[in-house]
Amino acid sequence: MNRKELVNQIKEKKSFLCVGLDPDLAKMPECVKAETDPIFAFNRQIIDATLPYAVAYKPNTAFYEAYGIQGMLSLQKTIQYLHHKNVFTIADAKRGDIGNTSARYAQAFLSPEGDFNFDAITVAPYMGSDSVSPFLGIPDKWVILLALTSNPGSTDFQTWENASPRLYQRVLEVSKQWGNEENMMYVVGATKAEMLKDIRRIVPKHFLLVPGVGAQGGSLEEVCLNGFIEGEAGLLINASRSILYASKGEDFAEAAAAEARRMQQQMAAYL
Amino acid sequence: MNRKELVNQIKEKKSFLCVGLDPDLAKMPECVKAETDPIFAFNRQIIDATLPYAVAYKPNTAFYEAYGIQGMLSLQKTIQYLHHKNVFTIADAKRGDIGNTSARYAQAFLSPEGDFNFDAITVAPYMGSDSVSPFLGIPDKWVILLALTSNPGSTDFQTWENASPRLYQRVLEVSKQWGNEENMMYVVGATKAEMLKDIRRIVPKHFLLVPGVGAQGGSLEEVCLNGFIEGEAGLLINASRSILYASKGEDFAEAAAAEARRMQQQMAAYL
Repeated sequence: MNRKELVNQIKEKKSFLCVGLDPDLAKMPECVKAETDPIFAFNRQIIDATLPYAVAYKPNTAFYEAYGIQGMLSLQKTIQYLHHKNVFTIADAKRGDIGNTSARYAQAFLSPEGDFNFDAITVAPYMGSDSVSPFLGIPDKWVILLALTSNPGSTDFQTWENASPRLYQRVLEVSKQWGNEENMMYVVGATKAEMLKDIRRIVPKHFLLVPGVGAQGGSLEEVCLNGFIEGEAGLLINASRSILYASKGEDFAEAAAAEARRMQQQMAAYL
Repeated sequence: MNRKELVNQIKEKKSFLCVGLDPDLAKMPECVKAETDPIFAFNRQIIDATLPYAVAYKPNTAFYEAYGIQGMLSLQKTIQYLHHKNVFTIADAKRGDIGNTSARYAQAFLSPEGDFNFDAITVAPYMGSDSVSPFLGIPDKWVILLALTSNPGSTDFQTWENASPRLYQRVLEVSKQWGNEENMMYVVGATKAEMLKDIRRIVPKHFLLVPGVGAQGGSLEEVCLNGFIEGEAGLLINASRSILYASKGEDFAEAAAAEARRMQQQMAAYL
């Protein structure tokens, strides 16, 4: 999906909500756990319920790999199901390796012929340019590079005070030369919303994927105040646990829809 | 496998060679490609041929994920095969995410109950402490943290001159407090052998996993000169392409054995 198509979806649904599909069997109701493939059954119902309110879905690969081969089969079914829904799909995989190896990850997650075929993949920047560039250059596919993450450990290196500019600023400055606003986005945690103004000075036009609203405590309002791009949002705000597990009962899908709708309505005010 | 057991293997085989199992169908002989599971058939023959000369095996997950579910099944068969060989096994996965998500990756790759159950996993440090700590604390399992990698892009951030100390030094200094020499190793590329002396000042006792000898041009001698720990090596030197594809003909396994033996004999001189 290219930028124009993504923006059209955002305008149509009046939403820039991304739903993080991070399945956790321990949190699912018994009726789902009784299914042959409980993870896919759960995802399918979450997707159906939230589709009017979300423009993107982001399975985090860790939650599938944790269930071994069976989990990867559930991921495959999930992405195949999403292909029919006209939504932006993100493999939250945080991959990255030397050039010839990153090319294999690109094949795994972005190739139209592969088992997964996502629109975008999250990539970790530590190994530098040749670890990221193999993901670029596939038509209508995207790299979403980690810049400033939402977790406590982000202060260890990303905002470490002995680097000037800070490492996350360096990552933005250098990496924006590797791609462009049509094939790169950045991960910026909602828990760091006050730093978004500064980030927008470096990357005024790139889409930002913003996790950390919901369970991690970030504020949707603050993110919009500091990061919104007029007319096209320029943001994909992700919520995972707050939507998926809004109820742990049999009404989980209705509860997920209600929470997604609540967020979408907040977003609509900005569009 | 704990440190004592690993050192025993090193002393017994007079080797600290790690074989990188990075299967590439395009480089395999026709006789292998005709097998039902060519990747596993290739790996099995490589393992059998190199086992007298190697103490560790390191499948890079990218080369399996690139072949989708089928590739992951080949990886599962490979690790199960390695479990019977008394060798140190490394998932070269370069994972890392927020705490609750890294815990899922630990479950995927290190759990004795999981489909993969490796001794160690490579982890990327960008997200900091809580992205790494979930991998620690499992008995006899290891984190191998990226410090200074062998690729050209390592200069973008790892050795960036506006950070003092350099980022890779910061990573070593901070992260060595998260674990200890019994559950953490570091990736240091052989192409950066001249920096090993400095690295050994920061982490004198940690094992280092050293890729980049062979196809990438690093020197085994220089690595040993600057990084060797008396009596126990403290190094795992990895070679992938130079062993796997020493011959692209039907004699690939014999050629791999010869190359592994050549490296082992160089190593024996230091032990």
